[in-house]
Amino acid sequence: MAEKEISQAVIGRLPRYFRYLGDLKERGIERISSQELSDIMKVTASQIRQDFNNFGGFGQQGYGYNVEYLYDEISKILGIDKQHSLILIGAGHLGQAIANYTNFNKRGFVIEGAFDINPALHGTKIKEVEIRPIEEISAFVKEHKTEIAVLTVPKDQATKLAAMLSECGIKAIWNFAHVDLDVPENVQVENVHLSDSLMKLSYNINRYEKEGK
Amino acid sequence: MAEKEISQAVIGRLPRYFRYLGDLKERGIERISSQELSDIMKVTASQIRQDFNNFGGFGQQGYGYNVEYLYDEISKILGIDKQHSLILIGAGHLGQAIANYTNFNKRGFVIEGAFDINPALHGTKIKEVEIRPIEEISAFVKEHKTEIAVLTVPKDQATKLAAMLSECGIKAIWNFAHVDLDVPENVQVENVHLSDSLMKLSYNINRYEKEGK
Repeated sequence: MAEKEISQAVIGRLPRYFRYLGDLKERGIERISSQELSDIMKVTASQIRQDFNNFGGFGQQGYGYNVEYLYDEISKILGIDKQHSLILIGAGHLGQAIANYTNFNKRGFVIEGAFDINPALHGTKIKEVEIRPIEEISAFVKEHKTEIAVLTVPKDQATKLAAMLSECGIKAIWNFAHVDLDVPENVQVENVHLSDSLMKLSYNINRYEKEGK
Repeated sequence: MAEKEISQAVIGRLPRYFRYLGDLKERGIERISSQELSDIMKVTASQIRQDFNNFGGFGQQGYGYNVEYLYDEISKILGIDKQHSLILIGAGHLGQAIANYTNFNKRGFVIEGAFDINPALHGTKIKEVEIRPIEEISAFVKEHKTEIAVLTVPKDQATKLAAMLSECGIKAIWNFAHVDLDVPENVQVENVHLSDSLMKLSYNINRYEKEGK
């Protein structure tokens, strides 16, 4: 188990390691050298060794890394060895896409409630979960001790909802609204700003063209 | 205009500056000091000054920064001062969500084609764009000189499609599939790995709880 502080840079790389190790595990591969992992992941073997040293994942000379051990350790560090409860706020296309993403459920992220501002949706279901009015969020979160709220609503709504969610004890907000949320430090926020991502792509097209082929 | 190389770290921050400057512009604000911008964006004024110095955005003593000038400069650097053509591959919920995201259109990202593997969808429309069979992608991209392909398909399909798209001259792939794409260096890739993002959130919940309140 990792007790010492792991840098944010390493943390940022863990989900990718986890993904590749999961693929290897599924293919029945029990061990892998840092060089082999380096080849498939296109990062240097030295980077891999340094990263894995952070949580005691030392490879053995002539053996390499134990795939399942590393997979399990990373899963513990990421906190995905246990279930997390989610509510979905905003039941539009993006909310539907997230609800239907089977991988999340497989990884232990369970959608327990869904909410939308549109009365026409109330009582209908999204992936077997009933859609409720947003006025019921606060009571729901308190009763179910919901950990994570997924926000797929317009930005003006997102700001108000984030304040309300913080007050009723949510632990984290997965924010798809195109705005930075101002929440207390006990509420973790992870943003998915799609426009920002698209702009970076546009920048890279531009740069490649300017630099010439 | 920026001629010198701008670091990827600065580029990564540009969309966020662009977003805040756009908000200020909409509110009719003509100028702002680095300190005021620092307060609303929660980054240091010194960071802002350094970043803006990269593209000649020097503030003037007692005046501050010209909001519209900075907005326009950043827009040019990001390549969003001109239109970009997109095709959507995968017309499921995520594809629908992206097509319906009005902001993209406003920023000049125009969806010109949509494709899906499901025959039941062929001939139906997504945001006024007809959904076609994926077999037609190659001819479409060549004819329309499409710049960007948005991939919202399962990972095994994504790998094959990326190879095909690279061959028919696509400039960039905005990849939502949960896999790293292997494409030539003239094809720009920007990944939106939602699972990775959710795992980071899970890590931060875990860390906050371990550290105690």
